[in-house]
Amino acid sequence: MKEGFGKLTSLKEAKEVILNLIKEKNDEIIELDRALKRVLAEDIIAKIDVPHFKKSAMDGFAVRAKDTFGATNVNPKELRVIGSVKIGTVPKKTITNRECMAVSTGCMLPNGADSVLMVEFTERKNHKITIYKAVTPGENIIDIGSDIKKGKLVGKKGELINPRTIGNLASQGIKKIRVKKKPVVAYFSIGDEIIKAGEKLEKGKIYDINSKTIIAGLKEYNCDVIDLGIVKDNKEKIKETIKKGLRADFIIFSGGSSLGEKDLMCKAVSEIGTILIHGIAVKPGKPVLVGKVKNKLVLGLPGYPTSSLSNFYILVIPIIEKMLNVRYPLNTIKARLARKVVSTIGRYEFMAVKIEDNRVIPIMRGSSSITTLSEADGFIEIEENTEVLEKDSLVTVRLF
Amino acid sequence: MKEGFGKLTSLKEAKEVILNLIKEKNDEIIELDRALKRVLAEDIIAKIDVPHFKKSAMDGFAVRAKDTFGATNVNPKELRVIGSVKIGTVPKKTITNRECMAVSTGCMLPNGADSVLMVEFTERKNHKITIYKAVTPGENIIDIGSDIKKGKLVGKKGELINPRTIGNLASQGIKKIRVKKKPVVAYFSIGDEIIKAGEKLEKGKIYDINSKTIIAGLKEYNCDVIDLGIVKDNKEKIKETIKKGLRADFIIFSGGSSLGEKDLMCKAVSEIGTILIHGIAVKPGKPVLVGKVKNKLVLGLPGYPTSSLSNFYILVIPIIEKMLNVRYPLNTIKARLARKVVSTIGRYEFMAVKIEDNRVIPIMRGSSSITTLSEADGFIEIEENTEVLEKDSLVTVRLF
Repeated sequence: MKEGFGKLTSLKEAKEVILNLIKEKNDEIIELDRALKRVLAEDIIAKIDVPHFKKSAMDGFAVRAKDTFGATNVNPKELRVIGSVKIGTVPKKTITNRECMAVSTGCMLPNGADSVLMVEFTERKNHKITIYKAVTPGENIIDIGSDIKKGKLVGKKGELINPRTIGNLASQGIKKIRVKKKPVVAYFSIGDEIIKAGEKLEKGKIYDINSKTIIAGLKEYNCDVIDLGIVKDNKEKIKETIKKGLRADFIIFSGGSSLGEKDLMCKAVSEIGTILIHGIAVKPGKPVLVGKVKNKLVLGLPGYPTSSLSNFYILVIPIIEKMLNVRYPLNTIKARLARKVVSTIGRYEFMAVKIEDNRVIPIMRGSSSITTLSEADGFIEIEENTEVLEKDSLVTVRLF
Repeated sequence: MKEGFGKLTSLKEAKEVILNLIKEKNDEIIELDRALKRVLAEDIIAKIDVPHFKKSAMDGFAVRAKDTFGATNVNPKELRVIGSVKIGTVPKKTITNRECMAVSTGCMLPNGADSVLMVEFTERKNHKITIYKAVTPGENIIDIGSDIKKGKLVGKKGELINPRTIGNLASQGIKKIRVKKKPVVAYFSIGDEIIKAGEKLEKGKIYDINSKTIIAGLKEYNCDVIDLGIVKDNKEKIKETIKKGLRADFIIFSGGSSLGEKDLMCKAVSEIGTILIHGIAVKPGKPVLVGKVKNKLVLGLPGYPTSSLSNFYILVIPIIEKMLNVRYPLNTIKARLARKVVSTIGRYEFMAVKIEDNRVIPIMRGSSSITTLSEADGFIEIEENTEVLEKDSLVTVRLF
């Protein structure tokens, strides 16, 4: 009673072997404008205070607070307007005793002034204003460095760049930044039965699904993809295609649902490299092949769509994370199982689930099914040593 | 005591006015390979069953179940092997009494067979196999249409396309699909004080932050952006720039933190169009300007970085959603407030928050701050008629 795979490698061990073949990407310098979703490869320290000058937070008049003390509606005071500050310029005058200058929001505060009185509490007549309110020193002023102090970390090495971090960097006038280069991944599908979209579907043939889902997944994680197409069940062709893929950082292929393909894959990889693992204790997605060709990872995913896409989530994302030295945020929720789930002891299980009315509903349609994942909201991970998850038990769902 | 904005428009009313100016985008036909993150503009009905032929789920032998009945380890049976099925082809032979054919996973089932016996339970000698197990009819067979039945909806109009939906469509051999065209948005920043990254920073000037954050936000939502740069405080230039932007679906500008800019913006828009709203009851981000020029929305966001980016989340995303007729999934969590929050009655408040140890910590650094949002994990929305949120009250955080 042969198993076909001999002893299966645990997921943990497989990940170690795979990640050992993966090197962190080098850096490159790009425009900040193209930095969205890239990974910062340097700490960025603020070189300038933000704001880098004392400025008005309101439209009104820059004053010395003590000149306003005592002013109220019933007991107004008067100040002399010695000019107005033009936004974006350095005020030319200094305010002294009972003087003020008109300012608008964002204007630099003139020397001598320590606060801004809002325009709403004033009445202007030519070069005089009547003020109906007192202000305290510092009122309506945005101080130097109150948002970002010089020397503060405004971008952290390893950070995934989003519009908000871009704002931080833009405040420093930064034009270019150092980021991790994008991972480059080569992909091909293997199988005599696989045909391209648009081709006529004969009995026995199937359309290529895995190239579309895996490549879309890689693009979602901002990888550059070398699409090597569909390769027939032919050892030499497979070897040739792997060699073509060696200009990528690593190679993924899918296929080998059939016995003949399994053999071909193994032979092809071992003739030009080494097979490190064949068969991982995961469900679905057991028939994973991990090889090394010219020191590059060659990762064979199962032909079944759900298996190969599951493996993408549990094996390929960690590879991308290691290359970029980043952790993609896991989007998870906790909720209760709508029914009992029985898993296989000794195999990690990736179970696609739907969430309805805050209940977790396992989708069990088999690994050959593509709709399993397309109907799922996410998946739960069942550890190797867990056999049963009871109905109503609290589980963590990783949302897609 | 003037307010500067007269009566503020409620967020609800403002959204209605804004969305009334927005038309749904037309469709276009694109390659499935480029469909990631686009919005499907047609229902797609399966034209073929998946699988579209009866196939083997295992490596083994296609048999007639009744020929195996009774076979056990101690009482094995024998079958005659009349050939093997080549994957991707139609089997040329039909199985009759006590016959079988070798099949591998994914092979089409030969006529006459109704089940597959796994190779593990057999022993082959030339044209005979000894079988040590019985199978039931249908065992290890993937039936026609068991994954997708002809006529089933495999892609829904209005669906945001992800790798899993792409897999569904690929199973049908679909090469091109009808999607919503991408929104095209024109953007510019206004202000004499605003300078470009790379320029020398003089006192009184600030680097352009909003163009970077808003454009990155638009790209995150898969819009095409026309970047119209920075425009000085000059009415004619603003009018010119708005006119240039009219080839987009709508125009966003930011600026007008200063009194002079507010006037200029209003005059510029009203000289070539109509101002519909000036001032929305939201915090931060009150000084929003909603205008209409040649029937196109012109949306003026405040100059303060946090205000303009907050407005992006509460005003611009709904615009994109209306254009594409899609709802972007809200990524929310519920957690308890780490401290009491006081809000302003009559104003909707967008409050940036951090989440630490499952507690929600409001970040209150003011709307002029860019770090408010870059340090935030998300935001909570405080409705207009809410004044106080007590410490420990449960709030919904919209995660970025």
